[in-house]
Order: sequence, then C-alpha cells, then structure tokens
Amino acid sequence: MPNQKLILDGSRVAQEIKNNLLERVKRLTEKGVTPCLATILVGDDPASATYVRMKGNACNRLGIDSRRISLDKDTSTEELISVTQQLNEDPGVHGILLQHPVPSQIDERAAFESIRKDKDVDGVTMLGFAQNAFGLASYPSCTPAAIIAILDYYQIPIEGKHAIVVGRSPILGKPVSLMLLNRNATVTICHSKTVNLDKIVNSGDIVVAAVGKPKFIQGNWIREGAVVLDAGYNAGNVGDVDYEACLEKAGAITPVPAGVGPVTIAMLLKHTVDSAKAGNNLNLM
Amino acid sequence: MPNQKLILDGSRVAQEIKNNLLERVKRLTEKGVTPCLATILVGDDPASATYVRMKGNACNRLGIDSRRISLDKDTSTEELISVTQQLNEDPGVHGILLQHPVPSQIDERAAFESIRKDKDVDGVTMLGFAQNAFGLASYPSCTPAAIIAILDYYQIPIEGKHAIVVGRSPILGKPVSLMLLNRNATVTICHSKTVNLDKIVNSGDIVVAAVGKPKFIQGNWIREGAVVLDAGYNAGNVGDVDYEACLEKAGAITPVPAGVGPVTIAMLLKHTVDSAKAGNNLNLM
Repeated sequence: MPNQKLILDGSRVAQEIKNNLLERVKRLTEKGVTPCLATILVGDDPASATYVRMKGNACNRLGIDSRRISLDKDTSTEELISVTQQLNEDPGVHGILLQHPVPSQIDERAAFESIRKDKDVDGVTMLGFAQNAFGLASYPSCTPAAIIAILDYYQIPIEGKHAIVVGRSPILGKPVSLMLLNRNATVTICHSKTVNLDKIVNSGDIVVAAVGKPKFIQGNWIREGAVVLDAGYNAGNVGDVDYEACLEKAGAITPVPAGVGPVTIAMLLKHTVDSAKAGNNLNLM
Repeated sequence: MPNQKLILDGSRVAQEIKNNLLERVKRLTEKGVTPCLATILVGDDPASATYVRMKGNACNRLGIDSRRISLDKDTSTEELISVTQQLNEDPGVHGILLQHPVPSQIDERAAFESIRKDKDVDGVTMLGFAQNAFGLASYPSCTPAAIIAILDYYQIPIEGKHAIVVGRSPILGKPVSLMLLNRNATVTICHSKTVNLDKIVNSGDIVVAAVGKPKFIQGNWIREGAVVLDAGYNAGNVGDVDYEACLEKAGAITPVPAGVGPVTIAMLLKHTVDSAKAGNNLNLM
C-alpha cells in the first residue's frame, strides 16, 4: 500500500480491549468478585485530576468499581504510604494507581515501591520494571503496553525493525525500550543529551515519542514510511509529535487525542481485571 | 592524539581498584570484620571452575575470605536455593556469587532471586537490575560496572556519545545499556535479530561487545576512532571482537585477556568489601 497513510486509531484498539473486558467483568461479578481499582490523586493539578476522573469513569462504564482517594497537596510521603498500605491490605481492592506526578515534597519512588506487587496494575514498582525488562511482568507499565498493543492490533511487525525511543523515564521511555527489545526490535534510546537527534530519529522504522514536550518531533526527522507512536499529551490536546508535518512522512501514525491515551486506560482496566481474577484463584504475595 | 591507539589496560584499572581495597580490607579486619565472598559452582564446567577459582584467588590476595561451595551437576533448584538461603542467614558471609551459567535443570532466575539483596554483590537479582536501571544500585552487575570503570579510568567521555551494545542478556547487555544511558549516552541495543548490524555498529562512538561469540565484531564495522570494549571471553582466550582488525580502526580498545575480565573481578571484590562495611554499619536487608 504505497503512499497510503495508516492512522493508528487508539479508540478502536481500546474499544476492542474493553469489549473483551465487559464479558470478563460480568463473569467475575456473577461469581461475587467485582474488580476494583483504587486511584490516588495528591494535590489539585487540573490535568492529573482529569486523568484520574477519566480512569474512574472508564472503570464505571465496564462495571469495575473505582475508589477515588484525593489527598491534600501538602501530604507527606509517610501519609501517602500509609494510604497505599491500607489499600494493599484491603481484599476488596485489586489495583492501585498513584497518579504521576506527585508534589515535590513526596518521595515518588518510595511511594511507588509501597504498592504491593500483586496490586501494581500500573507497573510502577522496581520489581515490576525488572520483570518487564526480562519479559516476565504480570502488569507492564500501561503506556508502554498500550504502544505494543497498538502495533499488534495493526499487525505492524516489530522484530528486526529499528525502533527509536525519544525519552527515558522510568515509567515510559525505559520500559517501552525494553519491551520493544524483547520483541526483537533493535532499540535506540534518545534523550535531552542526544547529539544529532534528527539524524537518529531518521534512522528509525518505528519512532516512539515519550519526551513530554509539545510538537517536539519534527516532520523532516521522520524517515519516509516510518511508524510514529506519540505517547505525549500536553496542554491543548497536543502530543510530542508535530502531527501534521509527521503525517506527511510517516507510513502510520497515532493521533493525539485518540491515539496512545485511550489504550493506556484500557490496559489499566485490563490489568485490574487480571488482578481481580488472579487474586481470587491464587493467593499471590 | 590523532592515530594514536589507546590500549585500555584492564589489569591496570583492576590494580588501582585492588590497591584501594587492600587498605580498606586491612581497616575492616582490624575492626574484627573480615569481608567474605561465598562462591557457588554447580556442576563441573571447566571454564566456570576456572572463573570461580580466579575469583577465590583474587579474594585471598587481598585478605578477603572466600568460601567455595561446589554442588553436584544434578543439583535441583530447591537444593541450590537452600544453599543460598543458608548463606543469606550467615552473618560471616557478605557477598554471594552464583557462577553463571547453571545446569539446565535449574531455574537460574529463581536461584538468582533467592540471593538476599544486601549480599547480591554480583548484581543479578531483579531488584538489583531495576535499581541499576534507575541509577540507584548499591551493587550493579560486575561486568557492566567494569566497562564503566574502564571508560572513567581513561577519562573517555560518555555523555552525548552514541554507544552501541551488541547483546541483551540480563546480566550484561541490558544493564550496561541502562548504565551508559544513565551516564547520558545515546544507546542502541543490538542482538541476533538486528538487521544491518555492521552499519549500526559503524554509527557508534562507543561499541560494547557482549554477544558471546568469538571474534564476532569485525574490523570494517568499526568507525575510525571509536572506543571498543570487549566483554566477551571465549575458548582459547578470544574475545567477541576481532582484535587485530578492530585495533586498526579503533581509537581505543580493550584487549582479551587483560581487558574487561580483571576489572569485573575487581568490581566483585569491591562490592564484597562495600557489603562487609555496610552490613556492620547499618542493618541492611
């Protein structure tokens, strides 16, 4: 299909995942287990509040319980950890999501680590990261998992392709690099200190933008026919990719919104349902 | 220094690390704490037996105790784990090294995971891997740490350089990639499914060979002036790099033997001494 642009419709991928979950939630609920996701929001950042609300609403539409915990912006690390520990012990809660980022007085790493492994449906703990790196994770980080799910849905080959990941955060750039590597891509990880970023991006068959800067990836960086996945979501509904310019060059591209975002939420729901099922079959942890 | 070849002498780097350790071991021993490394060898692979003997001898030369445990080649995972658990509980043991690879009936990952974090001086556990990935590790994997130590000893800049790592094992390719990334290199991870490996290696300012195949990296793959680090060690004292051919092109290169190998052992000794010190200051878990 030369010159045909493929728009990678995340809403469609998410819908398929959620259709499948609807059945699974129904069966679990009939057995007396209603999957439940607890979300923790610290502070009053409006974007974070929106994300948490979207996740809660998505749960409700599938019959998944959501428990929303809002903590004051002055919450200490210890206070936050005492909340996660209560949720760890609560048998009615199957997944815990701590909305990133937290206010600066909180040790985010310590807070993430306090989430019990079998409830870490967002894949933020160090053990979850390592399991993911070794291809052994129950619940890989949701955005990386969404990126892989989109590639798979559209049957875009990964093996032997050169993937360029721009960004190296612990919950996005690093895990998605390792997931692409485990799927036999050759992976280059770029960041703010990368020299000749334009040339390196231009060597990619697959480009993942995970940098957190609006319209950062330029159209003339993209190799003709490359696959572009935009994991960014910035103020004004803008991704990390200059969409119109990259669309000219790319063979396939995710839009923003309705690209990686909805699939990320669908993965979070899937992991919560997986955890509800696992917790009632096996006594994990 | 155009056209001057720099031979990266691992023996010299190792000697400096060990000279520093000699003093530290003396001071610890005077305080009644003799650092002790326990090595576990399963089976009778001659190369593995040689490595373990070399590590034990290196300990002894510095006044570090070494406890050598040899297990039958038919040892089960459970039997091996019961040995590591005894060593975990033994306050006289500060570091545990399980020689890789183990016979195929053993679940190596489970055996690695049974090593208590504060005694994981070889950096093989998943938690150690993740801490390393996030730049938080007490004891990074020894060969990756050796590669960084050689670059630092010779004051070879890492930041902003393009590093090509050939190999993706959990104890070498993956952790060294993440360590180079954390030092602000742009990192490309290659492997057996990589297409156009020669061209990709040729784009590297720094090339790390961690593939386990004798003389695999060819001279004409290397960019003029690149830094070549050979983490391979194959039968017949041969690395993963075609040394003579790569020497022609490289600006700096590690030989085999006397390259990465001796520094790897020195890092293991350093981590054991660090652990002996930490275990007697803090009650680490």
